Amino acid sequence: MRLRGRKGIRENLEEQTDLVVLDPRSYKGQWSKLFGNDHPIYVEFGMGKGQFISRMSHRYPEINFIGIDMYDELIRRASEKARDIWEPEGVTTPPNLKLALANIEYAEEVFAEGELERIYLNFSDPWPKSKHARRRLTHPRFLEKYRMLLNPLGEIHQKTDSRSLFEFSLNAFADFGLQMTNISLDLHAGGINEEHVMTEYETKFVGQGIQIHRCEAIVGADALERYKASRLDKYRM
Amino acid sequence: MRLRGRKGIRENLEEQTDLVVLDPRSYKGQWSKLFGNDHPIYVEFGMGKGQFISRMSHRYPEINFIGIDMYDELIRRASEKARDIWEPEGVTTPPNLKLALANIEYAEEVFAEGELERIYLNFSDPWPKSKHARRRLTHPRFLEKYRMLLNPLGEIHQKTDSRSLFEFSLNAFADFGLQMTNISLDLHAGGINEEHVMTEYETKFVGQGIQIHRCEAIVGADALERYKASRLDKYRM
Ligand SMILES: C[S@@+](CC[C@H](N)C(=O)[O-])C[C@H]1O[C@@H](n2cnc3c(N)ncnc32)[C@H](O)[C@@H]1O
Ligand SMILES: C[S@@+](CC[C@H](N)C(=O)[O-])C[C@H]1O[C@@H](n2cnc3c(N)ncnc32)[C@H](O)[C@@H]1O
Repeated sequence: MRLRGRKGIRENLEEQTDLVVLDPRSYKGQWSKLFGNDHPIYVEFGMGKGQFISRMSHRYPEINFIGIDMYDELIRRASEKARDIWEPEGVTTPPNLKLALANIEYAEEVFAEGELERIYLNFSDPWPKSKHARRRLTHPRFLEKYRMLLNPLGEIHQKTDSRSLFEFSLNAFADFGLQMTNISLDLHAGGINEEHVMTEYETKFVGQGIQIHRCEAIVGADALERYKASRLDKYRM
Repeated sequence: MRLRGRKGIRENLEEQTDLVVLDPRSYKGQWSKLFGNDHPIYVEFGMGKGQFISRMSHRYPEINFIGIDMYDELIRRASEKARDIWEPEGVTTPPNLKLALANIEYAEEVFAEGELERIYLNFSDPWPKSKHARRRLTHPRFLEKYRMLLNPLGEIHQKTDSRSLFEFSLNAFADFGLQMTNISLDLHAGGINEEHVMTEYETKFVGQGIQIHRCEAIVGADALERYKASRLDKYRM
């Protein structure tokens, strides 16, 4: 059923209390309780229509996922997507997924220190003008927030088609002192890489032959230790 | 005068003792003595026809430059280039430039520990097949050599058109634990960047509209300290 008008959407979201969180500030420090277990929490900041976060939650049942966006309409689209993915198994409420309405600007009001284990930034708005650099979700002022919210295993995973945003992000990660790994300038170069669940934007860009860039930035101390122990194994020295 | 045959080239090089070094192993630990001063030494590994190193030596008289290649013919071409650049000023011997015949594989036989301050890798052979990864000049087995040869202010500066080599290099720098900075995925995006002296390959690629990638990797402890003191200044937090 297609919903018309803003009022209809908000009512629809209010009815989906099992999946949609309209007052995420109330759960700050309480997300594990909401999920009912202590599994790691991975969030996508700016999930859009929710294909990525829905598929991820379905593929990795031992992880709790939260998709964040700031538009009601996108939360609604994502909720439909999520239920569609689980429906064939007769599951009406995805057990390890929440879709939350929030503005990343205030992420620290939604999550407590160390509450998250991974942050996905997929095809974030590139804000190409340099006067808008502060709005880019990898600007060091955001990285500061993320570092606070991530636990000792914390990582930031970014994918983007935007060369300028990716260049900015690599420098920001480096300047912020984060260890980078698994940098890719053309993620699907050797054909579609099934290991990486695709987002809506990614599906579209890949169809147009546009290259996808990807990078992981290690934030947590324990993740850094693990990385350091293995980092040169992949090279025959 | 065009020289014919290999014999002619070698004789020509042997006559250029003021500029060309055919037995660079003899100068290991003695390069400052050869230049006659203590200025920092910057080398280009794989200089080709020598446009970059010649122009750099002309632009930065307070730095000593060494261009390395493994082919006689390229040393000869580079020597002509170098003399051409200085000729208008009536200088017959560029005072701060040497062109040395050597294979980077044995760089540690040519330079002593801490003898270099900067290594330029410009448009190095990409060796795209993964079975040839060890030959790439940013493979960690080379980075190990470079780290030994560089002094506390040491840096590696790479430029390349090759996306695959650049991706490999970024990961190798990160995996090797080097701090990266000034990463660029399209160096001349805003028009030709005069700050960056162009190499022969670069001139050709830029003319074809091919993007140039660039990155600096900080190796020396003092350079790292300097970098750390300034790294977030460029962002309005
Ligand atoms: C370009 S879309 C990408 C959507 C999705 N990740 C994908 O790859 O298909 C960016 C999304 O980020 C959301 N967004 C941008 N800034 C945001 C903010 N400050 N807080 C929450 N969401 C934001 C937008 O509403 C939009 O849905
Ligand atoms: C693709 S060319 C680039 C030349 C120049 N840097 C430029 O940008 O125009 C690479 C150069 O590296 C040299 N080279 C490759 N491997 C080398 C090695 N192991 N030792 C010395 N020179 C090497 C080659 O002879 C060639 O001149």
